[in-house]
Amino acid sequence: MSDDSSDAALTYHVNGDLVPADEATVSVRDRGFMYGDGAFETLRIYGGAPFEWAAHRDRLHRTAQTLGFADAVPEDLRERVDATLAANDLDEAYCKVSVTRGVQPGKLTPDTDVDPTVVVYVAPLGRGGVEGSPVWDEPATVQTVRTRRPPAESLPADAKTHNYLPGILARLELRRAATDDFSADEAVMRTTDGLLAEGATSNLFFVDSGTLKTPSEDVPILPGVTRSVAIELAESEGFSVRTGKYTLDDLRDADEVFCTNSTWEIRPVTSVDGIDVRVGPMTRLLSRLFDERVERAHYGGVDGEGAEGESGGEGA
Amino acid sequence: MSDDSSDAALTYHVNGDLVPADEATVSVRDRGFMYGDGAFETLRIYGGAPFEWAAHRDRLHRTAQTLGFADAVPEDLRERVDATLAANDLDEAYCKVSVTRGVQPGKLTPDTDVDPTVVVYVAPLGRGGVEGSPVWDEPATVQTVRTRRPPAESLPADAKTHNYLPGILARLELRRAATDDFSADEAVMRTTDGLLAEGATSNLFFVDSGTLKTPSEDVPILPGVTRSVAIELAESEGFSVRTGKYTLDDLRDADEVFCTNSTWEIRPVTSVDGIDVRVGPMTRLLSRLFDERVERAHYGGVDGEGAEGESGGEGA
Repeated sequence: MSDDSSDAALTYHVNGDLVPADEATVSVRDRGFMYGDGAFETLRIYGGAPFEWAAHRDRLHRTAQTLGFADAVPEDLRERVDATLAANDLDEAYCKVSVTRGVQPGKLTPDTDVDPTVVVYVAPLGRGGVEGSPVWDEPATVQTVRTRRPPAESLPADAKTHNYLPGILARLELRRAATDDFSADEAVMRTTDGLLAEGATSNLFFVDSGTLKTPSEDVPILPGVTRSVAIELAESEGFSVRTGKYTLDDLRDADEVFCTNSTWEIRPVTSVDGIDVRVGPMTRLLSRLFDERVERAHYGGVDGEGAEGESGGEGA
Repeated sequence: MSDDSSDAALTYHVNGDLVPADEATVSVRDRGFMYGDGAFETLRIYGGAPFEWAAHRDRLHRTAQTLGFADAVPEDLRERVDATLAANDLDEAYCKVSVTRGVQPGKLTPDTDVDPTVVVYVAPLGRGGVEGSPVWDEPATVQTVRTRRPPAESLPADAKTHNYLPGILARLELRRAATDDFSADEAVMRTTDGLLAEGATSNLFFVDSGTLKTPSEDVPILPGVTRSVAIELAESEGFSVRTGKYTLDDLRDADEVFCTNSTWEIRPVTSVDGIDVRVGPMTRLLSRLFDERVERAHYGGVDGEGAEGESGGEGA
């Protein structure tokens, strides 16, 4: 099996043990493998601590509850994350936590007796905050795809599960549409009703006449932790923020567009379906405010301010 | 990790090697595990050979093509199945074949360079055909659930993938609704438009005034191999068969109901949402015809007829 050489030297945490990444395995009978029957979270580690840990932990619990294995999330999950970071000597990292229903007898119908599979993955990233630089080299180009965000009655929208094929099919559409000169970075997915939903791995924001807008939780989207932080930052500056039901035209006609996720943070968008968009003042300001918040929470302050503590104090 | 003791003694086939089932593993970075990014088929083995092999092989290829890794299905897949059966000394078996996109560098966007993970699972079953007995002890009771079959624009309906959470959520609803006295065997899923779709792991048929009816492929269903065989058997007897768009009321008002899949074969239904249904003549006749077809194709004939060869000759 091929492996990413940079990842092969890493150590992961699997069911309580630290193991070399290239020896980290699960049973072929793990329900995460057979059915995507698992929950996960993607964390950004700054200065040795997860950004917005409480929000990620709570969402992981909610996803596990939706899937009927709420008790499977280990109480020492944070300790496992910390142990994995320490084993890799990483303070700046991408971190992913997966909890699946594990191996069970029988076939599709889940058993109530769950011996979960718990995996912590890490990979090195650069420093964040005011003195850091983003993980992306360029602003994003985004393109609308045919693949639709599954409706909530098929796959609960706020559950972050291992059933990730719609996002993969969306990204495959981008790959198939790519030319030698151009390949979009993110797919814009609509709902089956044609409403603007989200990217394959990000939430979408746009600015319309000074108001920051993003699809509301009434639309089947995964409400991202970074999305919440962006909304909170905008509101704290007194900007008008609206969450609602929007269309592709709203996005294409916008004054500014950006997308958010845990590793991209606030990533400006400069092209929507081939239409150029400028990186405007709202996007720049929110990026700066985001970096300052990370700096205060994780690196001990901005301009001599005191640190707020690793998890920032504010809810996400 | 817990394991089913009966399965622990089995041998599986993983990426070209025969391995004890309890040592059969995949990387935690396998995209099948992380995202359900894989294709699978469930086969019934009768007398040492897969039932309707060509139909299953073709559907596996179609699923892999939909997922953008058509070339990943190994040319010697049938040999791997045969080797796994031989290693377990099994002539009567359940067999599952999974092909995933394997481990790739990077995150969600798939790479064109695929080193797939290929797993063959087996488990013993009893003899099939006229002299055999079904894997189920009783006819099925079915119950409508709230979870809807994902629309094709979110998850292509005819692709059999490792994204199986909608079916699991459907079965969880049955588990939650179960009492000490009663638990339904199969969930009835509707489309997001409210049309009758399919069970969590089976296709649904019903008889209305002598006509055999089942949701058509215009409805987002996985068109099962056993479903095709049932249609073909009914048509070969001169029965009227209609595929179309039906509602829950059509199912509840039916004269007979049965469901089909590779291991259940043709399983009569005796209760739909608490409404009793009798096991009628059409269901009994099709079950008998199915068994006779298996007998001829896999065990060398019925009443002294000659065998048609292991794959039956007819397309499915």
